[in-house]
Amino acid sequence: MDPITKLIEEFAHFPGVGPRQARRFAYYLLTRNADTLKEFTEALAKAKKTVGACISCYRLFSSGNTKTTHCMLCADTHRDTSLLMVVAHDVDVESVEKSSGYRGYYFVLGGTVPILETKPEERIRLKKLSSRVKEATGKGLKEIILALDLNPEGEHTGNFLTHSLAPLVKEHGIKISLLGRGLSTGTELQYSDPDTIKNALSNRAPAK
Amino acid sequence: MDPITKLIEEFAHFPGVGPRQARRFAYYLLTRNADTLKEFTEALAKAKKTVGACISCYRLFSSGNTKTTHCMLCADTHRDTSLLMVVAHDVDVESVEKSSGYRGYYFVLGGTVPILETKPEERIRLKKLSSRVKEATGKGLKEIILALDLNPEGEHTGNFLTHSLAPLVKEHGIKISLLGRGLSTGTELQYSDPDTIKNALSNRAPAK
Amino acid sequence: MDPITKLIEEFAHFPGVGPRQARRFAYYLLTRNADTLKEFTEALAKAKKTVGACISCYRLFSSGNTKTTHCMLCADTHRDTSLLMVVAHDVDVESVEKSSGYRGYYFVLGGTVPILETKPEERIRLKKLSSRVKEATGKGLKEIILALDLNPEGEHTGNFLTHSLAPLVKEHGIKISLLGRGLSTGTELQYSDPDTIKNALSNRAPAK
Amino acid sequence: MDPITKLIEEFAHFPGVGPRQARRFAYYLLTRNADTLKEFTEALAKAKKTVGACISCYRLFSSGNTKTTHCMLCADTHRDTSLLMVVAHDVDVESVEKSSGYRGYYFVLGGTVPILETKPEERIRLKKLSSRVKEATGKGLKEIILALDLNPEGEHTGNFLTHSLAPLVKEHGIKISLLGRGLSTGTELQYSDPDTIKNALSNRAPAK
Repeated sequence: MDPITKLIEEFAHFPGVGPRQARRFAYYLLTRNADTLKEFTEALAKAKKTVGACISCYRLFSSGNTKTTHCMLCADTHRDTSLLMVVAHDVDVESVEKSSGYRGYYFVLGGTVPILETKPEERIRLKKLSSRVKEATGKGLKEIILALDLNPEGEHTGNFLTHSLAPLVKEHGIKISLLGRGLSTGTELQYSDPDTIKNALSNRAPAK
Repeated sequence: MDPITKLIEEFAHFPGVGPRQARRFAYYLLTRNADTLKEFTEALAKAKKTVGACISCYRLFSSGNTKTTHCMLCADTHRDTSLLMVVAHDVDVESVEKSSGYRGYYFVLGGTVPILETKPEERIRLKKLSSRVKEATGKGLKEIILALDLNPEGEHTGNFLTHSLAPLVKEHGIKISLLGRGLSTGTELQYSDPDTIKNALSNRAPAK
Repeated sequence: MDPITKLIEEFAHFPGVGPRQARRFAYYLLTRNADTLKEFTEALAKAKKTVGACISCYRLFSSGNTKTTHCMLCADTHRDTSLLMVVAHDVDVESVEKSSGYRGYYFVLGGTVPILETKPEERIRLKKLSSRVKEATGKGLKEIILALDLNPEGEHTGNFLTHSLAPLVKEHGIKISLLGRGLSTGTELQYSDPDTIKNALSNRAPAK
Repeated sequence: MDPITKLIEEFAHFPGVGPRQARRFAYYLLTRNADTLKEFTEALAKAKKTVGACISCYRLFSSGNTKTTHCMLCADTHRDTSLLMVVAHDVDVESVEKSSGYRGYYFVLGGTVPILETKPEERIRLKKLSSRVKEATGKGLKEIILALDLNPEGEHTGNFLTHSLAPLVKEHGIKISLLGRGLSTGTELQYSDPDTIKNALSNRAPAK
C-alpha cells in the first residue's frame, strides 16, 4: 500500500475520525517541518515509554524517570480512605476531579459490561477490583461509589458489580452507593424525559 | 402595509420563528383551499372562546360548552392534597404528568423571575400562589415542591419563592422542597459538568 | 376533540412544524391578550380576502382594495419582454428579484414533477404556461429561462418542460435556457461533489 | 511537562482537534498494545521517509523505494499538455480527479493569499508556478485554469495570480480561465444567495 494511504488508514482508526479528517491529519503531519514532526514522534515515544497503569487504580499515568508504581492520586495519603469510587474509564477520573466534590480514592474498570455479554469478567477488571476492595478494608473502607454512565450499559455494569461484590461488602460491612439521579445542570423541565423527572421527584430535597 | 407582508410579520412574532419560516407559514395558509383555511380559523376561534385559566392552578384549559372553572387535574379529587408542585409554565405540567411520578396538585407561576428584576412580583403569580397555599393548608398541604428549570433564572426564582413563602410555610408547618439534582438519563460522566457531578456525588444513594 | 388539542393539530400541519413547536404556537396564541389575537386573525382574514393569483405569472399577490389582476412585477411595463423565467414556487421569484440580476418576466409553475409521476400535467401549470408563452411571443419573447432547483426533481421538471414546449419554441424561434451550473458562492473545492466540479470545469470562463 | 499532557498538546495542534478529542487520541494510542502502536509509528516514519513534493506540481507523493521525482499524475504522459490547473492544496487535486472531468496537469500553490497580505509571494509558490508555466509553454500549454475556492480569499488569490502571470501569458499567448460559477449540485433556488443566482443567470446555457 502507498505509505500516505497507509498513514491515512492508521488515523482512520482513531476514535471518532472519518476518512476526510484522517486524510487531513496525515497531510498535516507530512507537511510539518522535520523538527515539528520529530517533536510529535518523540512525545509519542516518551509517553509510551514512561506511561503505565497505576497498580492501585489502574489508570494510565506517567512515572517520568522514576520507578513509581502509584499514580499521583493513589500516592496521595491525605485522601479519604473510607471512600473508593469505581469508574469505567480513565477520563472519568478527570471529570470527577474537576468537580472538586470528591476526596476519596478511585478504581478504573477499564470498560463496561454490554447487556448480553456472557463473560462480563473479561470486559472489566473485576478480580483486580475485588483485591483492591479487600486491601482497602484494612485501611478503613466504608463505601464503594459506583460512578457509571446513566445509560443501559452503565446501569447493567452497576448491577453486575453490585451482585459480584455482594459477598465481599457483606463480610466487611461496606456500603455500595450509586451517583444521585435528577436534573443535571442546565436542564429545562419541559424537555426532560419522564425517567429524569421521576428521579428528580423521588430525590427531591428540602429548599435551604 | 401589504396584507401578505403583514401576515408574515405576524408569524415572525411566533416563538422560535424566523423570517423565512414566517413566509412559508403565510404562503402555506394562503394557498390552502377555503375549507382548510376555515378549519384553521375556526379551531383558533373555538380554542380562544372556550379556553381560560383554571382558577386553582392557572394553567390554560378548555371548558368546552360547560361552565367549569377548574381544569381536569384540579377537579380530580383523588389526587394527593398534601402536595403542591409549583412550575413556571403550562407545558411543565404536561412533562411532569408524563413521568407518572407525581399524584399531587399543581400551580403555574406563568413565568420566572429574571436575576436583575426589581419587581419580581410582576413577573409571576406570587399573590395567587400565596392564596392557593393558604387554601391548601386547610386541606392538608404538607409540602410545596418547587419544580423549576436548573438554570440561573430557575434557581433565582426558586430562591425568591422560598424567601417569599417563608412566613407562610413557617406558620403552617409546610416543607418547601426542590427537585433532586444529579445525573439525568443518558448522562455520560466524562461529558458532565463539575456541578452536575458534585450534585450527583452529594445525592448519592445506596445501590439496591 | 379538546379545542386546544385541535388547534395544536392545525399547527402541526404547517410545513416543518413538529408536535412540540405546534404546542408552543397554540399556547403562544392563546396566551396573547385579546388585541394581539384579533390583530393576528384580522391579518389572516385580510390577507386571504385580498390575495389572489396574478393572472399572468400566477404567483400570489394582494390586490388591496383595487381590482388589479396583475401583480406588481407583471404590471411593470419597463421590464424586458424578451425574457420569461419559469420557476417552481412563489418564493423563488423573491430570491431571483433579490439578486438584482434579472429584468424580465416570470411564470410560477406551482410545483415540480416527481420523477415517476404519470400525470405530470396535473402537478404544474403546463397549459397556462403554454398560453403565457404564446401571448408573450406577440410581445417579442426570445428566451424562456427554466430556473429550477438543481436536484433530480428539478432536472426532471426541466426536461419535461423542454420536451413539452418544443413545438411551441420551434414554431416561434424561441430559445430555452437553463441556469448556469458551477461553484456557488462559498464553495470550497475540496468539499465539492464530482458533478459540481465537472460543471464548473465545462463552464469555465476567461479570467478578467 | 507530564509526557501524557505533552502528547495531548501535540494532538491539540492537529487541524480541527479540540482539547477533548486530543485527550481521546492520546489515550487511544497509549492504550493500544505494543504491536498496534508500532504499526502506527512505523507508518508515520515510512510515510515521512518516502514522501516528498513532486518537482513538477509540488503535491506530496510517496516515491516508495524508487528515486522517482514526479508524482503519478505528472509522470503520466497521456494527459493533456495544453491544460494546467492551479489549485491551492493537495486535497483539491484529489477532488478534481474524482470528478473525472479533467485530463490536464496540475500545480499546487501550497496555500492562498490572505486579503491584507503584504508579501503574497511568501504565501504561495509563485516563482515555481512561473517556472512551471514557462516549461509548459514549450510543450503546448494553451490554458491555465485557476481552480480556487469561491470565497473572498480564493477570489483574491485568483486576482493576484491573474495579475502576476499577465506578462507571461501575454508573451506566450496563453489563456487564464476560472471555474464556472452558478448552481452547485443540490442547490435550491429559494435558499440561494443573490451572488450565486446572479452568476447562474449570466452563465445560463441552452437546454438540450
